[in-house]
Amino acid sequence: MHSGDFYRNGKFAYKLHQRDIKRSSRLTFRVSIQDKIIYTITKMVQNKSVNFVEVPTGYPVKDKTMKLVTGEIDLEQKLEDGAVIVKVLYVSIDPYQRGRMRDASIKSYAPAFKLNAPIDNGGVARVVKTANSSYKEGDVVYGYFQWSEYQVISPQEAKALRVVENKEGLPLSHYVGALGMPGMTSWYGLTLGKQEKGKTAFISAASGAVGQIVGQLCKRRGMYVVGSAGEDAKVDFLLNECQFDAAFNYKKEGPRDALKKYCPNGIDLYWENVGGETLDAVFEAANDFSTIIACGMISQYNTTEPYGVKNIMNIVAKRIKMQGFIVLDEFDGQWVQDFFAAVPGWIKNGEMKVKEDIAEGLENAQDAFIGMLQGKNFGKAMIKVAQE
Amino acid sequence: MHSGDFYRNGKFAYKLHQRDIKRSSRLTFRVSIQDKIIYTITKMVQNKSVNFVEVPTGYPVKDKTMKLVTGEIDLEQKLEDGAVIVKVLYVSIDPYQRGRMRDASIKSYAPAFKLNAPIDNGGVARVVKTANSSYKEGDVVYGYFQWSEYQVISPQEAKALRVVENKEGLPLSHYVGALGMPGMTSWYGLTLGKQEKGKTAFISAASGAVGQIVGQLCKRRGMYVVGSAGEDAKVDFLLNECQFDAAFNYKKEGPRDALKKYCPNGIDLYWENVGGETLDAVFEAANDFSTIIACGMISQYNTTEPYGVKNIMNIVAKRIKMQGFIVLDEFDGQWVQDFFAAVPGWIKNGEMKVKEDIAEGLENAQDAFIGMLQGKNFGKAMIKVAQE
Repeated sequence: MHSGDFYRNGKFAYKLHQRDIKRSSRLTFRVSIQDKIIYTITKMVQNKSVNFVEVPTGYPVKDKTMKLVTGEIDLEQKLEDGAVIVKVLYVSIDPYQRGRMRDASIKSYAPAFKLNAPIDNGGVARVVKTANSSYKEGDVVYGYFQWSEYQVISPQEAKALRVVENKEGLPLSHYVGALGMPGMTSWYGLTLGKQEKGKTAFISAASGAVGQIVGQLCKRRGMYVVGSAGEDAKVDFLLNECQFDAAFNYKKEGPRDALKKYCPNGIDLYWENVGGETLDAVFEAANDFSTIIACGMISQYNTTEPYGVKNIMNIVAKRIKMQGFIVLDEFDGQWVQDFFAAVPGWIKNGEMKVKEDIAEGLENAQDAFIGMLQGKNFGKAMIKVAQE
Repeated sequence: MHSGDFYRNGKFAYKLHQRDIKRSSRLTFRVSIQDKIIYTITKMVQNKSVNFVEVPTGYPVKDKTMKLVTGEIDLEQKLEDGAVIVKVLYVSIDPYQRGRMRDASIKSYAPAFKLNAPIDNGGVARVVKTANSSYKEGDVVYGYFQWSEYQVISPQEAKALRVVENKEGLPLSHYVGALGMPGMTSWYGLTLGKQEKGKTAFISAASGAVGQIVGQLCKRRGMYVVGSAGEDAKVDFLLNECQFDAAFNYKKEGPRDALKKYCPNGIDLYWENVGGETLDAVFEAANDFSTIIACGMISQYNTTEPYGVKNIMNIVAKRIKMQGFIVLDEFDGQWVQDFFAAVPGWIKNGEMKVKEDIAEGLENAQDAFIGMLQGKNFGKAMIKVAQE
């Protein structure tokens, strides 16, 4: 907004002086002459998003499967009662999103992404405009957000937001990882299997967002904890920071041999993140009456030729309970209170370690997502969309 | 025992007349001259058995994997305190026995058969001699018996016998099938999954010993019950006698297409008896939050190249609980009383149908066992070793 000639519908209207322009809010300007408002100009704000544009075969391809687009948003728009506008701070990158990159006619537990619309996922955002009495401007909220800088959250969607209190003053990124969906997944998932002192827990993808918390929770509960990861640096993190009893690089030592070596007393609790060959090896190494908590099978998400699991008969022979779950089904339990009463404090006082892999800006979201599917991230993968 | 010359240690001793020989029990004879007992002759009884003689690759082979042998047993022998001698009436033929035909160095849930010793399994027998106050001569007992006509049951083994009361006067063969291990397996296994009115239960190998009872129990509990079998006659039995809602011949209609057709509302409870392709198809057809009760996977017992299950990721996506079990682990529960309070009565009054496939004599045991592994039996497979 500068002074100068002012045109209306392409036609010269009047000479505009700076004194005629008044900012009535952060983004709206009123143009008035002799105190008569002659025009209200809303500054449309640039709004970058990452859209889903094509169903991939195998791994997603940058700028083919997804596309970074720049749109505009009117941050001063009149909101429907109950709606809010948020500025996204962090959004999560998770393996299960690969499953949403499918033809919408195929049903699954999570809805398919809409073509030519932004990808969405869990994240943390700041409320910048509110027509909902549950959220005030400036609140940090946790919820499902688009991979966009700004967005309008409908009254219906707004009901699912949760205000982040963060009494401990932790980095807000933790509410996408250890204190967000992945951390809650770890806590809830472990309600499905016994954690007994001295018994062996094995966790695949153990340095990842969920695995690192699962392992540390099992350690706290007195178990002998073994993890697998795909890089030596991740193995070091598990051993030295998360205090696992053993960890191995499955690319260097095949899971079958490694489990014999590192789980000398067999496996009592397996946290399944990867599927495929590792799962087959676990069926061999599992003890009678063991539990497999099936959280995901990342090795299978990008393949058109799924691995054929050959040792599944052990479910009968060893009386194994294998249980799949999705944490979203169980969000109303007492366990949510238990989780928030315990974990933030442990992170604050350093008893629990958190490793994050943060990509800066939506410009880097595609590389980060594809890299995560290839196991290149080290710790909880997410995008920092804007400064806190 | 005939009169004639009597030799002792190869030497003529005396002329024996019929009057000198007295039978002092069913099988022992006393030879006396002038009321002085000069010899007690125990008649050794011929005792046929089926021995395990070689670890098979793939299907067992008649007279190669097993062998019919004829030995002798002294039925008048002095018994250790607590032991009994039994005459076997019926012994069971079960798929899990294939798993016991392995090298003894390989551990599994059921012990390997000993080479050159009789095969054993659940069965029904009559006590013919007893040194155990829990069992009197003539009692019919249920327990683990060798595939032999007669056998000495050690004091330790005798503890696990159970006297068959059979107040309902049912055929004793039922205590090998519907009222034995298979029937109890059905009842206990169903404690692991919800049976809700109108929900769909699918049972593979549904006309078999376990499947036929599972299906009829699910029907009684108000479910929509679908079964698969490998012959049209079995399908007819499921539809017409067991009153299943639908049944199909998986050799004529592949499980994937058949499940789409016969389970239009998906599958809520799958009773797994076969594994392989059927299990893969069930993972596709299963509903969210469904249960798979894993009782066995007969399609995999005789193969050296196990089927690779490709759709197991559905355990996560559909939050499936898959649970293996062995009924022997759970034999002390209240459910045992519940089972015997209910099922014999239902069979007696015709509410529950029982189909048995009985091979006559140990001579036919091998064919019956191999046939059962190939799905040739129709109903609960067993051997009638002796007349009741």
